[in-house]
Amino acid sequence: MANWKSEARAPIVGIIGGGQLARMMFQAGLSLGIDVHILRSESDESLNKVAKEITVASQFDPTTLYHFARKCDVVTFDHELIPAQLVQELSDRNCTIYPSADTLALAADKAKQRKALQAAGIPVPKFAVVETAAELEAISTAFEFPLVLKAARGGYDGRGVHKFSNLEQAMHFMSTAKSPVPYVVESELAIDAELAVLVVTGQQPTDRLTYSPIQTRQFNGICVEAFWPTELDPEVEDEAVELAMAVADAVGSVGVLAVELFLVDGKLLVNELAPRVHNSGHLTIEGSVTSQFENHLRAITGLPLGSTEMVSPIAMVNLIPADSTTKGGINLEGALLVPEAKIHDYSKTPRANRKIGHISVLAEDPQSALKRAWEAARASLGGMVLGDPEEASVEPDA
Amino acid sequence: MANWKSEARAPIVGIIGGGQLARMMFQAGLSLGIDVHILRSESDESLNKVAKEITVASQFDPTTLYHFARKCDVVTFDHELIPAQLVQELSDRNCTIYPSADTLALAADKAKQRKALQAAGIPVPKFAVVETAAELEAISTAFEFPLVLKAARGGYDGRGVHKFSNLEQAMHFMSTAKSPVPYVVESELAIDAELAVLVVTGQQPTDRLTYSPIQTRQFNGICVEAFWPTELDPEVEDEAVELAMAVADAVGSVGVLAVELFLVDGKLLVNELAPRVHNSGHLTIEGSVTSQFENHLRAITGLPLGSTEMVSPIAMVNLIPADSTTKGGINLEGALLVPEAKIHDYSKTPRANRKIGHISVLAEDPQSALKRAWEAARASLGGMVLGDPEEASVEPDA
Repeated sequence: MANWKSEARAPIVGIIGGGQLARMMFQAGLSLGIDVHILRSESDESLNKVAKEITVASQFDPTTLYHFARKCDVVTFDHELIPAQLVQELSDRNCTIYPSADTLALAADKAKQRKALQAAGIPVPKFAVVETAAELEAISTAFEFPLVLKAARGGYDGRGVHKFSNLEQAMHFMSTAKSPVPYVVESELAIDAELAVLVVTGQQPTDRLTYSPIQTRQFNGICVEAFWPTELDPEVEDEAVELAMAVADAVGSVGVLAVELFLVDGKLLVNELAPRVHNSGHLTIEGSVTSQFENHLRAITGLPLGSTEMVSPIAMVNLIPADSTTKGGINLEGALLVPEAKIHDYSKTPRANRKIGHISVLAEDPQSALKRAWEAARASLGGMVLGDPEEASVEPDA
Repeated sequence: MANWKSEARAPIVGIIGGGQLARMMFQAGLSLGIDVHILRSESDESLNKVAKEITVASQFDPTTLYHFARKCDVVTFDHELIPAQLVQELSDRNCTIYPSADTLALAADKAKQRKALQAAGIPVPKFAVVETAAELEAISTAFEFPLVLKAARGGYDGRGVHKFSNLEQAMHFMSTAKSPVPYVVESELAIDAELAVLVVTGQQPTDRLTYSPIQTRQFNGICVEAFWPTELDPEVEDEAVELAMAVADAVGSVGVLAVELFLVDGKLLVNELAPRVHNSGHLTIEGSVTSQFENHLRAITGLPLGSTEMVSPIAMVNLIPADSTTKGGINLEGALLVPEAKIHDYSKTPRANRKIGHISVLAEDPQSALKRAWEAARASLGGMVLGDPEEASVEPDA
């Protein structure tokens, strides 16, 4: 791999995956003068019409990955779907990749992840890991119903999560699953608030900053809004930040790590992590001095990290068509009628439950910001926006 | 030309010129999902490695311009060097272009510009326009020395501006000029402050917003720093904004118009205008809700304008090598040691007096922001930064 420092040039960062996270990292790279190269699949649209150095090929072919990585100073991801084994092989061939194969392996497997967090003494929801209906039956008395089964691998945005009101149903599901994977079993929790804390870590573990906690709301397992500052007590926020740093230590993170937490009965539990820039952190683009996208690039290239200070209260709403009535993408004219709305269009074909953009609004307080962001979101899509709080049919998760 | 609204797709904006202004408009277009196409010259580097739809060809060839414009919904510029006649021909062939040929003609000719502003009742520095040494002699008694001669056309960043301490020298200069152009003659002014006011106007003249005034400092005729809020009284700021709106009316502006003003003996004078995004306005990227780049795109495409509200006090310093000792571009590691520094690298080869990037810093007040921005600027370049206030050899203009 090349070495930008010794060659006195700007770094080249390779991103595997060409979705909106890659798009926003590309955009952050423009300011820094960092060359961002993309390895994307045929179906990825987000960068197609804008970025220059794009390779359209399989992200899962070792030879393709190696040839791509060799041209870059450092390689990163916009998702965690690349098998850790492939990433390890690239590392073994002297490619610099963050997150590491070990961190990716934990991120991609909810069962391993939970066990690793628990082993590190981090509070997590009470859970068990089962692979068969018989195993489920054996541990079932330790849990309350409804019971939640989360596929250890391949789940995303609510996919792979199943809820059962009795053991019979759950066992039937386990015994008839087409491609069996381990499942994380939990009781359904009465969640008072969901938080995310972003931690950014440089190539030296001591080179670490955190962002202020972000409060999120999910609908059908999909994040629909995020805002800061949160509605929680400062002591709870401080504890959330401490826990997130402990998680970063436990998984050996480099770059941005998003730690998702639940507040249940006044107690914080770490739900899961993502070793990458994260939907909850999109509000850092306008809401903090340095966005998560810029700080991820700075961290993985070994550059000094940027200030994570909050610039203003802010809210973000995802533009997710709730059904298939949205045609022709985002209605810019509608969205921009709210003069403070900052729209981020991912240039993706609309489909039900697909994130095709987001809108952020700065305001004096997060609730005013949320209200304006939802107004702009409603005007952006031809049909209903997923999770719209003004829609009668909308009920929050859990 | 195509029509994005009737086709329910994102607009395509063509930019003639591929410098840093085009680069930052391209970057703003990414968020809006606007497709930005560039027509650049061989020597333009700023977008070369990043943007996808780039045509490398003469910007002065009517056929090239027409073929480029035909593929776009609207065409704009990152400079004012295209002859107004060529722009008029494109308009006549139904291409949508902002600024218009008439506005560009005024922008490109300081003599015509001054006369038009004066005719509109806008206060300007006392001036005359001369084409020969004899004409200069005839009007010379009306002016104090030192005398300043500004070439009506082709001047930029201090080029084309000449100062003379006596009439003999000035007449010698006029009579020996290689390619004679009209000159605007002025007495050297004792300027107390320089300001810029950005006005953004939509396709309907009533659709207009202004930004808060920006204070600038020039060195050798080149802008070296900018900040807001200014150090001036609110009444002076209000008057500056009123004058800028009057200038926008006088020149029939669509898109961003930058109006540069002098404060002399407590009185505001309009120095000149640029009908485009402007160096003074780079601080709107982080310092206001909607940047000048985004608002220019919104204005020329007929989208609603975005809030121009100030987010924070901010200062911007241009990264301009003062001599030829800077090699290999911007030192990112150095620049980013100031954690609040927002660097914008234009990916240009460093040369003395060339703007290769800028750094903005948000702070509690503009003077603290300036101090930090200069620290980061010093660390960014291998050699001296033009206009560095801590360099003993530096003396402000005028």
